[in-house]
Amino acid sequence: MLSTTPRTTLGRSKHRALSRREDLYAVLDAGMVCHLGVVADGSPMVVPTCYGRIDDTLYLHGSTGAASLRNTGEVCVTVTHLDGIVLARSVFSHSLNYRSAMIYGRPRRVEDPEECLAGLRAITEQLAPGQWDVARKPTRKELAATTVLALSLAEASVKVRQGPPNDDEEDRALPIWAGVLPLHQVWGAPEPDPTMTAELPVPAHIASRTAPAR
Amino acid sequence: MLSTTPRTTLGRSKHRALSRREDLYAVLDAGMVCHLGVVADGSPMVVPTCYGRIDDTLYLHGSTGAASLRNTGEVCVTVTHLDGIVLARSVFSHSLNYRSAMIYGRPRRVEDPEECLAGLRAITEQLAPGQWDVARKPTRKELAATTVLALSLAEASVKVRQGPPNDDEEDRALPIWAGVLPLHQVWGAPEPDPTMTAELPVPAHIASRTAPAR
Repeated sequence: MLSTTPRTTLGRSKHRALSRREDLYAVLDAGMVCHLGVVADGSPMVVPTCYGRIDDTLYLHGSTGAASLRNTGEVCVTVTHLDGIVLARSVFSHSLNYRSAMIYGRPRRVEDPEECLAGLRAITEQLAPGQWDVARKPTRKELAATTVLALSLAEASVKVRQGPPNDDEEDRALPIWAGVLPLHQVWGAPEPDPTMTAELPVPAHIASRTAPAR
Repeated sequence: MLSTTPRTTLGRSKHRALSRREDLYAVLDAGMVCHLGVVADGSPMVVPTCYGRIDDTLYLHGSTGAASLRNTGEVCVTVTHLDGIVLARSVFSHSLNYRSAMIYGRPRRVEDPEECLAGLRAITEQLAPGQWDVARKPTRKELAATTVLALSLAEASVKVRQGPPNDDEEDRALPIWAGVLPLHQVWGAPEPDPTMTAELPVPAHIASRTAPAR
């Protein structure tokens, strides 16, 4: 079960909250970019960044110079999938179909070199499954230039809306088309780096993704 | 030109910053969901929400009960488009192709009924161009239940990465495929609300979107 702290308990739209840890994993594992919120000089700052998950830990990384990682106070990490536009008869009932997860916590700076590598591997594999094993691994110098943060998934909430519009009963007879316009993410054809000198085929772990995406 | 305050001037990756107001408009106008960052009880909170733009004002809305809108202190609104995964020879040079915009400011609560309607219209049209004119307009009661916020685009930054990987020179000869796996958003076929009693055709302003999406 997910946490039930005040900030992870939905005040409104309670029926949209999911409460199993598996629901949280499903939203996180289907994503590639999260939005990391920090407080910098008293103001909020929201930065898109990639992430990876190992069990109940989310890993984030960045340059050691990144302002968003220098702050190690409380953060909020949000992952959102937009699944469709909900077109209702009334403007008021228009909505979005989506899956989203919010995680609150104070990230820990990863110092252990093995955990650093494991975190970077999780981040790389989240974006491109299979790449870690084929790509050149980070050097000591590259690792020194990288900050890896670990955020516990202990305090998190999941919110999902799916399905048709919820127009008021008295609006349903209006002669206005209502329904959902679904939105999907699809991969395009791989674009080889023009600086590649050898004629290398697109590896199977990349080529196989160009089927309809998650 | 966009602003050059400390928080909108990139500390790193300066070459990825765009500085024209048109660049900001292009990123915002191509999006449907932003991530709104606020500080609530001293902690950051990042909420996905929809938005609309009129000239140099971004409009946000929500229930009058929404915690994220009750706070009218500083906010950060971020819009991100993920355009592809950049697959490099080295793990370290892996990256994302993206377009993103960050807006900082203190939103104004819209009180004027005409501006409220204009803001809601902009938000609706951002998600579903053409819907405002066909859908039932908000009632006085619905308007009373809705908070509309206006955020100036005065303080904003835009960051874009496109193109192939930037592997180190000495990595380029490695026998590892490198390139970009592009990611696109596409609309699915419209799904009629099962509660529609009349046989209404999908309107042209909706049907015409199911061509490859923005």
